[in-house]
Amino acid sequence: ILFKKMKKIVIFGAGMSASTLIKYLLDHAESEDWTVRVGDLSLKTATRKVNAHPRGEAFRFDLSDAEQLENEVKNADIVVSMLPAALHGSVARSCVKYAKNMVTASYVSDEMKSLHDEAVANNILILNEIGVDPGIDHMSAMAIIDQIHEKGGTTTSFRSYCGGLIAPKDDNNPWNYKFTWNPRNVVVAGQGGAAKYIENGSYKYVPYHKLFTQISRTEVLDYGEFEVYPNRDSLKYRGIYGLENIPTMLRGTMRRPGYSQAWNSFVQLGITDDTYAIENSENMTYAEFLESFVPSDASKNLEEKLANYLNISTNSNEMFRLRWLGLLKNTKIGLPNATPAQILQHLLVQKWNLDADDKDLLAMQHIFEYNLNGKSKKIVSSMVLGGQDSVHTAMSMTVGLPVAIAVRMILNGKITKKGVQIPTSKDIYEPVLQELRTFGIKFIEEEFEI
Amino acid sequence: ILFKKMKKIVIFGAGMSASTLIKYLLDHAESEDWTVRVGDLSLKTATRKVNAHPRGEAFRFDLSDAEQLENEVKNADIVVSMLPAALHGSVARSCVKYAKNMVTASYVSDEMKSLHDEAVANNILILNEIGVDPGIDHMSAMAIIDQIHEKGGTTTSFRSYCGGLIAPKDDNNPWNYKFTWNPRNVVVAGQGGAAKYIENGSYKYVPYHKLFTQISRTEVLDYGEFEVYPNRDSLKYRGIYGLENIPTMLRGTMRRPGYSQAWNSFVQLGITDDTYAIENSENMTYAEFLESFVPSDASKNLEEKLANYLNISTNSNEMFRLRWLGLLKNTKIGLPNATPAQILQHLLVQKWNLDADDKDLLAMQHIFEYNLNGKSKKIVSSMVLGGQDSVHTAMSMTVGLPVAIAVRMILNGKITKKGVQIPTSKDIYEPVLQELRTFGIKFIEEEFEI
Repeated sequence: ILFKKMKKIVIFGAGMSASTLIKYLLDHAESEDWTVRVGDLSLKTATRKVNAHPRGEAFRFDLSDAEQLENEVKNADIVVSMLPAALHGSVARSCVKYAKNMVTASYVSDEMKSLHDEAVANNILILNEIGVDPGIDHMSAMAIIDQIHEKGGTTTSFRSYCGGLIAPKDDNNPWNYKFTWNPRNVVVAGQGGAAKYIENGSYKYVPYHKLFTQISRTEVLDYGEFEVYPNRDSLKYRGIYGLENIPTMLRGTMRRPGYSQAWNSFVQLGITDDTYAIENSENMTYAEFLESFVPSDASKNLEEKLANYLNISTNSNEMFRLRWLGLLKNTKIGLPNATPAQILQHLLVQKWNLDADDKDLLAMQHIFEYNLNGKSKKIVSSMVLGGQDSVHTAMSMTVGLPVAIAVRMILNGKITKKGVQIPTSKDIYEPVLQELRTFGIKFIEEEFEI
Repeated sequence: ILFKKMKKIVIFGAGMSASTLIKYLLDHAESEDWTVRVGDLSLKTATRKVNAHPRGEAFRFDLSDAEQLENEVKNADIVVSMLPAALHGSVARSCVKYAKNMVTASYVSDEMKSLHDEAVANNILILNEIGVDPGIDHMSAMAIIDQIHEKGGTTTSFRSYCGGLIAPKDDNNPWNYKFTWNPRNVVVAGQGGAAKYIENGSYKYVPYHKLFTQISRTEVLDYGEFEVYPNRDSLKYRGIYGLENIPTMLRGTMRRPGYSQAWNSFVQLGITDDTYAIENSENMTYAEFLESFVPSDASKNLEEKLANYLNISTNSNEMFRLRWLGLLKNTKIGLPNATPAQILQHLLVQKWNLDADDKDLLAMQHIFEYNLNGKSKKIVSSMVLGGQDSVHTAMSMTVGLPVAIAVRMILNGKITKKGVQIPTSKDIYEPVLQELRTFGIKFIEEEFEI
């Protein structure tokens, strides 16, 4: 008797964003005849995520153990890396060596890109950028771009926004924000170079210290108003999306109104800087820390000096938010040798952490303008997903489900591309978007003449 | 018959700041029985600087030729490196290998510091930071600090300012500034981290985008008013100067009043950024370049948008200076693939270059406060030097003369320290300062009770 061979999936990294991914794969393991091996530096985390599923296997995974990596890759049919982005390279080299397909939710690094030819030669696919942002943004945008171009239209403007936020019901602090993913990434967001976009054919460059003042506004479905600050590099997406000559292209991050103006206070003060340690930070209070970033003035108290430095009123919304955080209080920081960004993060996590029953919200919106048969039209495509609970958050679902669906499609031979790829072609994005809809991840499209 | 052995000096790098250094060494070559070999990547430059002096030898020097470096070091009695600071390391390693003394005018890098033990073991001195800033600042400050401490006083405040400027007679543009040294260093001045100082026991951190707004003012002798913006790291000088517990310590750069406010416009725009290339910079005009850094607003012209973005009047001093530079003009830039900083520099060098008969000015001022016998006192020590001509500029004299004097003292056995050193001890600074006075480089000291 011949048996269809059971397939082995190995997942490296079982952190927060891997929860829904692991659940999907385990849910399909019986019907698809898979085993799902889940490795994490913490065996406890891996074990909890496998949750005693008969098709699941948890193991302690240490990337510094090269032999373990090789053995795991060798024995797998497909490899999923949910490790921090900088670690995908060594996994990918092993996948190339043993000719195993691989999937990640991270941006294609130069290191990853350099493996393309070898991956093609070994007849494997390394599919990247198939989480939410990057991932769902690529797929949902390309679905509309291809549709416009198939009709013979010319895209003249593309704005694409994404935000990980708190669900309206649990949105109960003055910043209208809580940490639904890595806090450090929120604190240093926008650093490392000017934001770049193009608007009506004119290139625009926004230095970091102006980023949170250059906001635009948008409404998303019946979720009300959001504000958007520009992402680092919107220009390179012209090439990725086949929109080389588009006059307007802007990608941005969504927050609730007022957030950016208040966050700009931190940027202006310089307390998002993660590059040097504050002297004597352990014994300082937050008020003393703040005092180090405003000029001395014996005639003013700290609050007045701060307001004066930021050129705002002590009764402004920014000052209200700063006071609410406790930045002006004589509370000890208690962090030795800490950077300004670490001190700020330490304060924020005490105030912005999710409560046990809090749910998050993932919002995405694309706004296209295009010309067709002499008419100008506008398409607004919006998606909002609420998290199910503190494990299956909207963030975990939107990152993990596209990865999981892609894994299934690759194992079933429905994705046949080879090499280092991202999901911008119809053969990938169409079936993935279709299945995402069954999980409530669906875009509402509105079209107008303009 | 026994002859005293002729000494051989080799100088690597014959650029602008080496002119006076080379002249001093050639002027003393006959009486001291030296030969002076001058090497530069440009043989023409080296030849011009040697100026057919019978004791001088010009040669083409290429640091990438390791054999040439080794031969030159091996045959020399002392090595002077006037190369860019990043290149001193390989010269120093060669000096350690062949046990030759070495002098530089640059900051001690970590690489240089790591050679200390080997230098001591090989009985050689690598003397660094003996130009103007660093150099004359260290020596003139330490002379006063030692004098205060020898009297039993306690230094409570130290502010130290230095500026390379244009001589008053030739100070004829609205910025009151011309390039008297490397333009790129002026354009990127202050970048790479927050400025750090301490004021009345409170640490102060100033992010780059606020640097040119945090200015103080000072008068220097009868040269009138100057403004000062903080240098990168004043805190580390507490240890270097033996002032570990001083409540106020600030080092800064001097400019003429109004410069910093106008320069801040560039910082706020983001056009001092040297980390990315502007799209299509070759075919842009300066006005189009500027347009890329201000938000779009169809109701305003470029000048109004700029004034609005910077929150200043179109009639302000800043705007007058920006217009004078031609930043709002439709002149082609003509630089391919250029960073914002390169474009700004390209504009500035057309406007701020020295005329053939322009003379420069080097100003330095230390302001000390100290307690002695229950009284508080203040010492203001000021030095201003005008350049002689376009070759022997104040910059070339103040950088080169201390180096040259140190070389002579080392060859004559008057400096006996070994290892990697800077000139903060009396055995070095006292004779060097004394000889500098004969060249007009002298500090005027004023003391008050406060």
